[in-house]
Amino acid sequence: MNVHGEHYRTIWLKADDPTTVQIIDQRHLPFRFVIEDLRTVEEVAVAIKEMHVRGAGLIGATAGYGMYIAALTAPRTALSDFQEAIQAAASRLKATRPTAVNLAWAVERQLTAMAAAGDDIEAQIEAAALTAQEIADEDADFCRRIGEHGVKLIEEIAVRKGDAPVNVLTHCNAGWLAFVDYGTATAPIYAAHDKGIPVHVWVDETRPRNQGARLTAWELGQHGVPHTVIVDNVGGHLMQHGMVDLVIVGSDRTTYTGDVANKIGTYLKALAANDNGVPFYVALPSSTIDWEMRDGLAEIPIEERDATEVRIMDGRSGDEIREILIMPEASRAANFAFDVTPSRLVTGLITERGVCAASEAGVLGLYPEKRKE
Amino acid sequence: MNVHGEHYRTIWLKADDPTTVQIIDQRHLPFRFVIEDLRTVEEVAVAIKEMHVRGAGLIGATAGYGMYIAALTAPRTALSDFQEAIQAAASRLKATRPTAVNLAWAVERQLTAMAAAGDDIEAQIEAAALTAQEIADEDADFCRRIGEHGVKLIEEIAVRKGDAPVNVLTHCNAGWLAFVDYGTATAPIYAAHDKGIPVHVWVDETRPRNQGARLTAWELGQHGVPHTVIVDNVGGHLMQHGMVDLVIVGSDRTTYTGDVANKIGTYLKALAANDNGVPFYVALPSSTIDWEMRDGLAEIPIEERDATEVRIMDGRSGDEIREILIMPEASRAANFAFDVTPSRLVTGLITERGVCAASEAGVLGLYPEKRKE
Repeated sequence: MNVHGEHYRTIWLKADDPTTVQIIDQRHLPFRFVIEDLRTVEEVAVAIKEMHVRGAGLIGATAGYGMYIAALTAPRTALSDFQEAIQAAASRLKATRPTAVNLAWAVERQLTAMAAAGDDIEAQIEAAALTAQEIADEDADFCRRIGEHGVKLIEEIAVRKGDAPVNVLTHCNAGWLAFVDYGTATAPIYAAHDKGIPVHVWVDETRPRNQGARLTAWELGQHGVPHTVIVDNVGGHLMQHGMVDLVIVGSDRTTYTGDVANKIGTYLKALAANDNGVPFYVALPSSTIDWEMRDGLAEIPIEERDATEVRIMDGRSGDEIREILIMPEASRAANFAFDVTPSRLVTGLITERGVCAASEAGVLGLYPEKRKE
Repeated sequence: MNVHGEHYRTIWLKADDPTTVQIIDQRHLPFRFVIEDLRTVEEVAVAIKEMHVRGAGLIGATAGYGMYIAALTAPRTALSDFQEAIQAAASRLKATRPTAVNLAWAVERQLTAMAAAGDDIEAQIEAAALTAQEIADEDADFCRRIGEHGVKLIEEIAVRKGDAPVNVLTHCNAGWLAFVDYGTATAPIYAAHDKGIPVHVWVDETRPRNQGARLTAWELGQHGVPHTVIVDNVGGHLMQHGMVDLVIVGSDRTTYTGDVANKIGTYLKALAANDNGVPFYVALPSSTIDWEMRDGLAEIPIEERDATEVRIMDGRSGDEIREILIMPEASRAANFAFDVTPSRLVTGLITERGVCAASEAGVLGLYPEKRKE
């Protein structure tokens, strides 16, 4: 999507140096647009863990490029040394964020591709380069297709509402900044806006890291989509008063039975949507579906992050970025990063293959090759 | 309650000058403890409107003292001049915050008391002084009694849990800082803690003004009650995992049918409590009951405040208090201050007369003198 009128993806190989991966260091948005070079596995791991990059698809794509960097930087003295370094990189990258399912998925896909390239180290490096590119391209393509399927839901509401804008509420950032391009929850919104359908987005601030206020608001603004930032407490009130036509959120991991792990607070919005008859959709590429898990609430591990993220807020003060303490020094804080929305509260899933019910039958209907037995 | 070991109320007459009202200017908590003098109606109105004081009970008590200041400062040239100034003060004070029901209640109570004092200006001033003191004392006494009734709910859970602490979740600040003393939602918690019942409080941050993180955490800390600050998104996840035994919140206005207007986001916690079988109680003095309204969702006016409260955050940076911008300069924000939780989601109301069902029958059972016909 566009930044100051120029097209960007969220991750790419440096134009004049294909051994360097470049990312937008999202910690500085919306106040500064900073591009960071990644040249070692450790730099990639830190970029994922410390959330220079974040979001399901982009974490996967970054892990894919991370494995390519692992291959580039592994010792070539002997195949066993090379393979040992690759395995260590795989473990290091997989340990950075426990909830995102396509982190492990991207790493495994790289390991499989490299193994298939045989015992030649150069061939393995080439396979890693190709696979990293494929993962990124696929992610962008899947998001574009999610937009094509999801826009129909917005169009149906638009027909009913006439000239009035369709009000979509979203939580966190499942925008293009969370993927390689287009985003998931935002893809139908961008598609609608580009078709001239009047759309307005309620952007949940998304404490504690404020990805909504910082990232979603910024990227919608860059693309010219009308939007209003609200604190996370407001969505229920808006739905009670008919001010939300549709909720679309993303997902960090969805079980094949339709339970959705997403940014903490998603479950509360799903409850409110359900209580007020507002459709609640989850947009996701199939790479974020967990094909092994039946019960999301019992089984999906929920990352607990450093409480500093709750205690300290950063933002712009004049020309500087400042950190401030926003609670008593002496009080404890806790920081759960995700919650699980049970499938019963989800109206449907918007995937790259189409829209389906949030149920085993719905998901396997779109992905019949995943049926077991 | 105690501040640095010394007993305070939230509002009082200055020790050596009974024509000056003193308040804790709560905008500076938890970082600075600032006492402010109020000597004119305009100063009182600004203190209410700009939230130097806030919270249902304290707004009422401040309005009560505001009418006393109005009486002190009104012209005594003629009774009609005096009465005109009193009426103007009443209008000015009532217009400061539209949602809080006991703002108007306290002003009306003062007008009635002053009218009952007859045509003598000095007698009216004396009546206003007495009534201001009465409103404050009653508020503190009602809160103390709410604590006595509510602590039984905590005791029942404590018996079941043995030595494990009872986990109470609360939203916003319905603590002693929101009243004259004790608080409402916090009164049962303080009572339990003082009885030696192990209790731990999950404190919702409560965006956008962060009354939970700033005020509730501070006052619980000052009183030695174990607590953990969480962002507003977390409560649902905690309830899904059995980490909340009881929710207690306050109320800015409750209909006699049991619908509860409280800080924005309360409704979302009520939905989560209902979905997970967690008891959801509202603690309130009867001064916040609206005896005319049947349908809270349709009838209670919801204040929309300045969007700056969403856009700008303030906190401590070194020894200074700093303001920072936390979203894109170019994006809009909206700021709805309250929402309404329908009675069907409320387990019970904790009042100064006891605990009752959140229904017309329950409320009128405790307040039979309010029955119409």
